[in-house]
Amino acid sequence: VTAAGEGPVAILAGGGGLPMALVESLRRRGRSPRILAFRGFADRRLARLSDGIADTLDVESVLATLARWKPALVVLVGAVNRPAPLAVLSAFSAYRNRQHLAELMASGDDGLLSAVIRLLEERGFTVGRIDELAPELLAKQGVLGAVAPAPEAVAGISRGFSLLAALSPFDVGQAAAISGTRVIAVEGPEGTDAMLKRVKRIVGRGVKDRRGVLVKTAKSSQDLRIDLPAIGPRTVLRAAAAGLAGIAVGAGATLILDESRTIATADRLKLFLVGHGTNATTS
Amino acid sequence: VTAAGEGPVAILAGGGGLPMALVESLRRRGRSPRILAFRGFADRRLARLSDGIADTLDVESVLATLARWKPALVVLVGAVNRPAPLAVLSAFSAYRNRQHLAELMASGDDGLLSAVIRLLEERGFTVGRIDELAPELLAKQGVLGAVAPAPEAVAGISRGFSLLAALSPFDVGQAAAISGTRVIAVEGPEGTDAMLKRVKRIVGRGVKDRRGVLVKTAKSSQDLRIDLPAIGPRTVLRAAAAGLAGIAVGAGATLILDESRTIATADRLKLFLVGHGTNATTS
Repeated sequence: VTAAGEGPVAILAGGGGLPMALVESLRRRGRSPRILAFRGFADRRLARLSDGIADTLDVESVLATLARWKPALVVLVGAVNRPAPLAVLSAFSAYRNRQHLAELMASGDDGLLSAVIRLLEERGFTVGRIDELAPELLAKQGVLGAVAPAPEAVAGISRGFSLLAALSPFDVGQAAAISGTRVIAVEGPEGTDAMLKRVKRIVGRGVKDRRGVLVKTAKSSQDLRIDLPAIGPRTVLRAAAAGLAGIAVGAGATLILDESRTIATADRLKLFLVGHGTNATTS
Repeated sequence: VTAAGEGPVAILAGGGGLPMALVESLRRRGRSPRILAFRGFADRRLARLSDGIADTLDVESVLATLARWKPALVVLVGAVNRPAPLAVLSAFSAYRNRQHLAELMASGDDGLLSAVIRLLEERGFTVGRIDELAPELLAKQGVLGAVAPAPEAVAGISRGFSLLAALSPFDVGQAAAISGTRVIAVEGPEGTDAMLKRVKRIVGRGVKDRRGVLVKTAKSSQDLRIDLPAIGPRTVLRAAAAGLAGIAVGAGATLILDESRTIATADRLKLFLVGHGTNATTS
């Protein structure tokens, strides 16, 4: 299923470093993807490389571009903020009835992205998975850096993954922070960076020995064509600033942007970085 | 079991309006409780009425005072911030061994409060439950104000209570915010007010019709001798400011401070206020 067919891979590119990482990965494999960059989200370097620019909500123009490109696969990648409700309503109004639109707006982020994927499939496009196109971008299992987690942190990691599994049916955050066995924060739509600021306020004051852990993974029911959770060097910096001892991500269910720099940053700051094996990650 | 025995009810009073509400409730029943106010937490009016003032961490002085009063029942009531780890360690060091202390510090807030309750019981005190001493302070079931929730909000309430039930084993927040069926925030140790600020940032921008709901209830496994979650007039004000349509609390598992003013505030701001019946509340 991995990008068979004649056409190119079309990348619908949002923000962050992931779209560029995917482009580079595909090029290393001798494939040149077509890039449609989302205005205001895709970074400048990527936008310069792109074959087209579109507004996230200009569904019509996105579909028209894809129809011209006739891609073998379409991949959605990179962060796109949830747009304002009324904007979504008007963007989708040509494609969905009122009832469907209301459900769409009331659903979680995954609900919205699933709707986009369904729309693409209805138009005959095949939507690809980044873990199949560029498996090397996914977190591997085991201790990834030079620092191993203390036994106490291992208990925290296990508790964190149980918590995220319990939250899976609710389409809420894909990350949490645990200190000891105490849950310190659960990520909502505000994202990991904002959650880590909260963690800093809660554990930061006067903690001498860092003991907390950031856990992050895809929901167990996650459609892997939908943007996977990701960490990168910045996540490590923020976790360190929040007074955490390390980061555990779901192996095969989380992306690591700029892996070598992410690991080097963790090593330098003496944070552990662990790819946690779960049974429920690849569905 | 309701405060039999000869001695008075001893109230260990933290912050917020609840200790005063309990004092007034007991007085209406013709009982005059002894009040030990926690310095820096108990409000001024209550501190003036109190029979003693103690630092939350001065375990020795608290136990000595209680030993003098010989209360039939001790009740812990009102908010007390989680103290800094090192302070707890030194306060409890006379009563707990190192291993126990480490577990205590690593556990959630309930773990810490449970340890206090165990210590009191070891010293021969009976720890009472506010829902037995002053049942009228607990949320009743049904629509409590003038506004009824829309069908969409009812779905959100139901999703919110399912979410809180799923979180119960993790000793994390007792509140969440849902919009439609989308989970917008899960409360951590930062508390409901801070969570509602986050909600305001997430849903606040440009939402014309309020649709979200704040849900709040005790954990299904909660020891009801431990401070119950509470709402009051201020919660209603903050929920309104966050753009929510209403509040649903666990009937019999949440306290309503100053109920008449809380309901009046909700009515004035056109928020619904619902006591949600759950099976798992009274254990």
